Amino acid sequence: MTKVYLKIGEQKRIIRGHRWIYSNEIEKIEGEYKPGDIVDVYDFKNRFIGRGYINPKSKITVRLFTYRQEEINREFFKRKIEEAWQYRQKIMDTNCCRVIFGEGDFLPGLIVDKFGDYLVIQTLALGIDIHKKTIVELLDEIISPKGIYERNDVQIRELEGLKEQKGYLKGNFPTKVQIIENGIKMWVDLENGQKTGYFLDQKENRLAIAPFVKDGEVLDCFSHTGSFTLHACQFGAKHVTAVDISEHAIETIKENVLLNGFENKVDYRLGNAFDILRELQREGKKFDVTILDPPAFAKSKKALKGAIRGYKDINLRGMKITKNGGFLVTASCSHYMSPELFMEVIKDAAQDADKILRQVEFRTQSKDHPIVLNADESLYLKFGIFQVLDR
Amino acid sequence: MTKVYLKIGEQKRIIRGHRWIYSNEIEKIEGEYKPGDIVDVYDFKNRFIGRGYINPKSKITVRLFTYRQEEINREFFKRKIEEAWQYRQKIMDTNCCRVIFGEGDFLPGLIVDKFGDYLVIQTLALGIDIHKKTIVELLDEIISPKGIYERNDVQIRELEGLKEQKGYLKGNFPTKVQIIENGIKMWVDLENGQKTGYFLDQKENRLAIAPFVKDGEVLDCFSHTGSFTLHACQFGAKHVTAVDISEHAIETIKENVLLNGFENKVDYRLGNAFDILRELQREGKKFDVTILDPPAFAKSKKALKGAIRGYKDINLRGMKITKNGGFLVTASCSHYMSPELFMEVIKDAAQDADKILRQVEFRTQSKDHPIVLNADESLYLKFGIFQVLDR
Repeated sequence: MTKVYLKIGEQKRIIRGHRWIYSNEIEKIEGEYKPGDIVDVYDFKNRFIGRGYINPKSKITVRLFTYRQEEINREFFKRKIEEAWQYRQKIMDTNCCRVIFGEGDFLPGLIVDKFGDYLVIQTLALGIDIHKKTIVELLDEIISPKGIYERNDVQIRELEGLKEQKGYLKGNFPTKVQIIENGIKMWVDLENGQKTGYFLDQKENRLAIAPFVKDGEVLDCFSHTGSFTLHACQFGAKHVTAVDISEHAIETIKENVLLNGFENKVDYRLGNAFDILRELQREGKKFDVTILDPPAFAKSKKALKGAIRGYKDINLRGMKITKNGGFLVTASCSHYMSPELFMEVIKDAAQDADKILRQVEFRTQSKDHPIVLNADESLYLKFGIFQVLDR
Repeated sequence: MTKVYLKIGEQKRIIRGHRWIYSNEIEKIEGEYKPGDIVDVYDFKNRFIGRGYINPKSKITVRLFTYRQEEINREFFKRKIEEAWQYRQKIMDTNCCRVIFGEGDFLPGLIVDKFGDYLVIQTLALGIDIHKKTIVELLDEIISPKGIYERNDVQIRELEGLKEQKGYLKGNFPTKVQIIENGIKMWVDLENGQKTGYFLDQKENRLAIAPFVKDGEVLDCFSHTGSFTLHACQFGAKHVTAVDISEHAIETIKENVLLNGFENKVDYRLGNAFDILRELQREGKKFDVTILDPPAFAKSKKALKGAIRGYKDINLRGMKITKNGGFLVTASCSHYMSPELFMEVIKDAAQDADKILRQVEFRTQSKDHPIVLNADESLYLKFGIFQVLDR
């Protein structure tokens, strides 16, 4: 086995749970290897640290599968996939769920989502991509889906020297499938929907809005395919205004609203949420519950400063449009916004909006996206519910 | 109205939501006042900040009721109590809940808990204690309980120049009452139980253990009156070992277990949880789920260092006694342990125990104990569920 030696001190972070080894942390590599090969990692004192795959093309040169000297073979993948699947069966309704959350399930670079009877898979790094055939066979064996679809049309694969592609891996089926999330029916577009088709990471958070939306006027900004809108209707909201900038999104929400029989409860505003919020404010509208579920404003550390401004602005507007005693439901899915930083932004916005906030919920992503301690990237979703009070 | 002037800069924290004014932050006081009187607070530029009660005997000289120039009278208390009660009715089953969470409900120093048909009240500061009669009348009017009991047998009242006392405020009833928490029956001792009789702040967290305890061997340390033990049984645990140092607690757990028909599922260990954990380890016992709900190890900032050692030690032992792939349910109710610090302690313990942890839940106190942003004391309970994995 080829040996990768770490520089002095670099083993600490890795031992504690963060399984990525960056190129600048490597002292030397002994032995031959091809990109994607399994290698062993040792510290500066020649102590074994772990085993993983290497890709010198990537800034993350090695990603560890394990801290043990165990074979990385079909048996290994089988055990990991079984453990991941058993965990989901233990914790939640698996009609729709994330089956494999990459690093969070100790299978770096691998994402598998379940939508009804179908699986969608992403292999985001070379070292996992070369095991795709085995993984697909095992998923088929363990979960028995009707079909498996590949959504490797993601730019980050380029950093790994992989090309973008999508298509059928098992079966041939209409890629618009129906899922049931928290009792609500929803169309998911496996072929063209965002990421793997739908954002499952808010599944539990969508449930958390139940007591707050009942009998209320709800504003759902960045409504996307309407998941929060539908949940609000299901939980007894009087009326929901769904806002999205994409015509395709608004069309999808309409379909999903129809599917659940909520067409008398929802209306739509097409446009930028920042502008629509200003517009609604000018119209003198106020809401019992304002939901803000924006896309990641900070996709890199460099973009953080601008993102902070964006989050502050949207939250400030959200607070202003919420009735006294109403609730702001606000999320950030950018890893670079830490929970602490996100809270600071909310506090700043509250001060500028001259509001007093009471936190009634603060959550992360759903349990099927488990967070590995010390692997900071694995905590990325922040979700808060705050009561907004006049000073 | 007597005017309390703040020193330069001291208004900032107060405006942002933290409504306590410490003696060393006061520049001068203009006008006459008796301890407990309502006063107005101004900043150094003579701008009105808020209105609250004063007690020069207390280190917290003024606690604000409001940022407005409104009358603090029966109407004010009525509005605040009504708002608090409406909020609880909105968010949860109110058979048992905290009705008033002091500062969190903008009624500093006032605690009201509801146990079935009865209320228990604490007035922890002079400025609220002098309104006790009005508050009790209003609680009776708004909530119509069968009885109200006073649990002012708390030492911190001495700092306010108040004496310790307990007894009936409305009605005369057996003080051992039955509540239903998450569908589970429980005896609560209003007269002699800890604090107001029972810790309601974990009500929602107790629900969160459901998927993890099913079919499992559960260890419940610091079991107190058995709330987690009963929930584990209710959610399908195979067996629970309840650990507490107090004979009275063990007797109470037994009564509660009997009340719910779980007597074949539970056994008991009387003793210090630290010792019992060591004992169980020597016996070679391992659990699917280990629950740690200790009392506050840090009751002051000074005690924090020792508390960190205590939390680390108990969590380390908890991890070691948990099976590979099992779950550690761990809490800290000490405000001085911030969520960040608590997480650091968990991480340290995991490293020393040579375990990999996956966070699947991280929560605070239940929603009937709302957290006011920037009033840091109002966030005090941390509650995590972690999967414990061998390295």
